[in-house]
Formats: sequence, structure tokens, C-alpha cells
Amino acid sequence: MKCLVTGGAGFIGSNLVDRLLKNGHEVTVYDNFTTGMLYFLKSEKNRDGLTIIKNDLLKQDALRMAMRDQSIVFHLAANADVRYGFEHPAKDLNQNTLATFNVLEAMRVNGVKRIAFASTSAVYGEPNQIPTPESVAFPQQTSLYGASKLACEGLIEAYCEGFGMHSWIFRFVSILGERYTHGHVFDFYKQLKTHPDYLDVLGDGTQRKSYLYVQDCIEGILHAVMNTHEHTNIFNLGTDEYCQVKDSIKWITETLSLNPEIRYKGGKKGWIGDNPFTYLDTTKIRNLGWKPKHTIQESIIKTVEYLDKHPKVLVRDK
Amino acid sequence: MKCLVTGGAGFIGSNLVDRLLKNGHEVTVYDNFTTGMLYFLKSEKNRDGLTIIKNDLLKQDALRMAMRDQSIVFHLAANADVRYGFEHPAKDLNQNTLATFNVLEAMRVNGVKRIAFASTSAVYGEPNQIPTPESVAFPQQTSLYGASKLACEGLIEAYCEGFGMHSWIFRFVSILGERYTHGHVFDFYKQLKTHPDYLDVLGDGTQRKSYLYVQDCIEGILHAVMNTHEHTNIFNLGTDEYCQVKDSIKWITETLSLNPEIRYKGGKKGWIGDNPFTYLDTTKIRNLGWKPKHTIQESIIKTVEYLDKHPKVLVRDK
Repeated sequence: MKCLVTGGAGFIGSNLVDRLLKNGHEVTVYDNFTTGMLYFLKSEKNRDGLTIIKNDLLKQDALRMAMRDQSIVFHLAANADVRYGFEHPAKDLNQNTLATFNVLEAMRVNGVKRIAFASTSAVYGEPNQIPTPESVAFPQQTSLYGASKLACEGLIEAYCEGFGMHSWIFRFVSILGERYTHGHVFDFYKQLKTHPDYLDVLGDGTQRKSYLYVQDCIEGILHAVMNTHEHTNIFNLGTDEYCQVKDSIKWITETLSLNPEIRYKGGKKGWIGDNPFTYLDTTKIRNLGWKPKHTIQESIIKTVEYLDKHPKVLVRDK
Repeated sequence: MKCLVTGGAGFIGSNLVDRLLKNGHEVTVYDNFTTGMLYFLKSEKNRDGLTIIKNDLLKQDALRMAMRDQSIVFHLAANADVRYGFEHPAKDLNQNTLATFNVLEAMRVNGVKRIAFASTSAVYGEPNQIPTPESVAFPQQTSLYGASKLACEGLIEAYCEGFGMHSWIFRFVSILGERYTHGHVFDFYKQLKTHPDYLDVLGDGTQRKSYLYVQDCIEGILHAVMNTHEHTNIFNLGTDEYCQVKDSIKWITETLSLNPEIRYKGGKKGWIGDNPFTYLDTTKIRNLGWKPKHTIQESIIKTVEYLDKHPKVLVRDK
């Protein structure tokens, strides 16, 4: 099968590319390499069937060319930076909403009918139902990131309705694992490498978060794509647990054998738009036969161990 | 109070402008006049306090200039054409989503903190709960129009969260009344003027639709803006009833004293993305003390009578 992976040089994307290549598919990576790394794509041995296109999703012509003859698009490229959205309000709109529109248009003009999309638990805002199912009450957005991904979901659904496409929309919790290069575990790790004796934490440490190991995430995506056939198929992806920020700090510092002073700053929320409690109900995809193989603690430890072995990825910080 | 009304030369906008001027407010109309008509803004006598700016919401500089010193924005400008969305996929994105982003940015840079927004029942797609409350289960989009308005809602909510703004989001059923210039009552009227002996109808006539009279709509908007104070306040606006398409045809033909042959085409839906049953639960705004003064039948008859007295508005068809 010919697969286009947008953001294929990124954290989740490059892991997915490895898997698709291993499964014998032809893979085209479309990535602008602002956060993606060629290093990720070259770290495995056998690269037969891999094509790499360095370009931006806002370049419609290049995108339409890349889309030719593809069987399916895994659309993972995005600005994945929730926290700084309000500092540059157009970024999520451009890199997520408009980019997704361009992907859909490129699919339409090329007759490509299948798209798997990386959405986010952030579309739930601060839900009043926890664990949060896909069918929770109509949400209100609390971040420009969430708003942009909700807009993408709506566009994808409308394209499926109007143009006979099929989509798989995955609302991820935070993903961890090999090649992870942004988010709070990454930030904590970087801080501790710079000053092992203290750690500045946004919020009071009681925020409850959910994480999923990247390989479990990829299993979930491929499992759903193979086993569901509605025009639009929407799934939460996460573990059946959550942890507090202070738990994750404990696991990180233990893995690094450090005992820093923890300096909490601010109140219940780490920042404006930070959801103090993320915990998804994953019954829908579990009923399909998928379940994660790793706990949150295991994914945090694996992440820290990876970062410690690959100092190169630290330079690609924002 | 200084009010900016985007789409202020349009159907709902110009009626709102009349009301705001009557209430003694200063009103700036910002409209590109692609569907709005100067005729609407000149049809009432006293125009003291009215400023008209002919420009597009995609022109950021002009919009930011117009936004200076405004107290509140009534953002009504939109591509309101649900049916033809799939024929020009970028139109809703540009005229609704991007235009709304520009409005929010113009507000942010000018320190304008209040926005009332014309959303739509189309954001509910085909809801599984009817009558549909604001808190219905997370919807799936079935039209590019609905998707674009959902994207607007998300952006507005995120701006309220991030920049301390206040918003009132109104999910309208179809609005009818004086200066109505698009939609199926308009289409039926135009057809019957051209060929009084027959009427072509998309769908089988059993689609169930809700309508609201434009003055009731405006009462609802102003009532909610004055009486609710959350960061984001979301209200359905509609009557406590619905009718079938064939009912509306009966009322239209009776008003015109015609007895045409009705030629139904297609199945349950009029077109792709047509919701065969729209009926909103308006308990939330009714509990605030608002209720519509006109039935669906009355608003259809008033609309037909208006169109019959104002042939000029027929030329502004798409």
C-alpha cells in the first residue's frame, strides 16, 4: 500500500514510518523539518520503499504532487505546542487548520479516499465527564491548539460526507517514548540536565495527566484503520489510568538518580488553557480489541532513558 | 455604546442595525456588499449614528482600523450558503473561519472584549437528540458550512479563555422575515414567480425544518447579551416547533394564491449535508426570559409578503 505520512520525520510520524516500512508498505514522508529530524528517519537500517519530501503543507502544488497515487494519508504534521498558542495566535490556524484543509483538497483532486488524523484530547477543553468518552457533551475550547484540531476534525468529517472519503480521527492523550521532543517530560528532562539541583514546575503539581507510549499509539491507529469502516471513525487513544505531575517528576528524577528541589509556580493550572485533568474513556477502541501494553510509568521511564541516550534530539527544542 | 456589525448590510445584520440605532447606539457597518445591500441600510429614515465601511473581513488593516474604540462586535458576516459548500470547498473556510479569526485578532489588538456571533444549528450535523440542546453529544459535521462555523466557535471560545474576552454564540435555525434573500423559501418564491404552474423541490418534502422570525432572533441576541456574563455564553435560537417542507410550500402557495404542481426530486435529503430534521431545544434562552412572538407559519407568510412587495431584492440571488 502507498502511504503518505505528513509529519513523517517527527516523533510519532517517524515511529509510524518505521512500522509501515517493516510491514512492507511504500511510504512517502512529507515534512517541513521544522521540528522533524532526518536523524529519526535514518536511525533504522532498511529504508527500502521510503521517499522523503521536504516541503510545507501550506505549499499546495507540492502537496498535490506528493498525493498522487497514494492509498492512504496519515496526517500527523501539526504545531503540537499547546502551551504557547496565545503568544502567536495564527500559528495553530495555519499549521493545523489550513494545513489540514490543504491535505483534504490534495486528496480530493487526486481521488485519495482515506485519511487517518492525529487529533487530541485538547478538543474536549475541560470536560465535565471524566473519564471522557468520544460522545461527551459538545465541548468548549480552552486553547487555540484544541480549537484548531477541532476545526480539522470538522473539515475531515465534512469532506467524508461530501466527497465519499473515509477517515479515522484519533484523540490522543500526550504521547511519550522514543524520539519524543516536546512537552513537559521533555522540558523537565532538559531543565535537570542544565541544573540537576532544582526543577521549576508550572502549576502546583496536582494536575492529573494521561500519557500513552508511542508504540501503543501506533498499534491503536493501525488497528482502528484496519478494523473500522464508517465514513468517519473517531477514537480516543490513551491508557486506562492517569498520574499527577508530581508522580511524573518522581519517576523522572528516580530514573536520572537525582533529588532536585521542586519549585512549584502558579495554581491548579500550569498555564492558560492547561487542562488540570485529562483522562480519556477508551472503551470504544478497547472493544475493538486494542489495549496498550505499557503503563504511564513505563512510558515516562522509557522516554527519559531514550533522551539520555540521544542528546542530539535536545538541540531541536523550540 | 459603539457597535461594529459585520455583515451589517445583510438580512439579519441590517435588521439588527435598525434596532441598535433605534436604541440610541452608534453603529459601524462593516460589509463587503457581495450579498448585503445598501438599500437595506437606507430603507429606514433616521440614520444618525450610522457609519458604513465597505470592505472585506479578509482585509486585516481595514478591519483593525474599523475596530478601534468599539465596545462590542456583532459578527454576522458569513457565507451563509449551506447547500453549495461542496462546490467551492475553500469558500466557507475563507469567509467564515478565516474571517472570524481576523475579527478576533482585530479585537485583540484593539482591546475590544465583547463579541456576539451568529453560529448555526448546522454545527450539530445530524444530531441523535431532538429537540437538540446546546449540550448534545459531541457532533460530527456533515457540511463545510457547519464545519466552518464550528471552527469559528472554537476560535472564539479559545480567545475568550486566553485573552479575557466575552462571547455570545447563537446557534440559529433558519431565519426568515424582512430582507431575507437566500434559502429555500426564497428559492421557492423565485421559482413560482418564474413559473407559477410548477415547483421543483429537492428531497421528498418530508424534511422537517425549524425557522425563526428575524425580529425574534434579534430580540434573542440582545436579551442574551444583556443578561448573561460567562466568558462564553452559548444559546440555541429557534421556535418551539418545526414544520415539513411540504407545509412551508402550502403556506407559500396559499399566500401567493397559486396552485402549482409540486415536483419532488431525490430522497429524504434535499442535498448532501442537508439535515432532514432540524429542531432545537431552546430551554436555555427561554429560562432567561426570551421567547419568540411569531410562529413558523407567520414568519413564512411575512417573508413571502415582503418579497412580493420588494422585487428589488430578488436580483441579488447567487
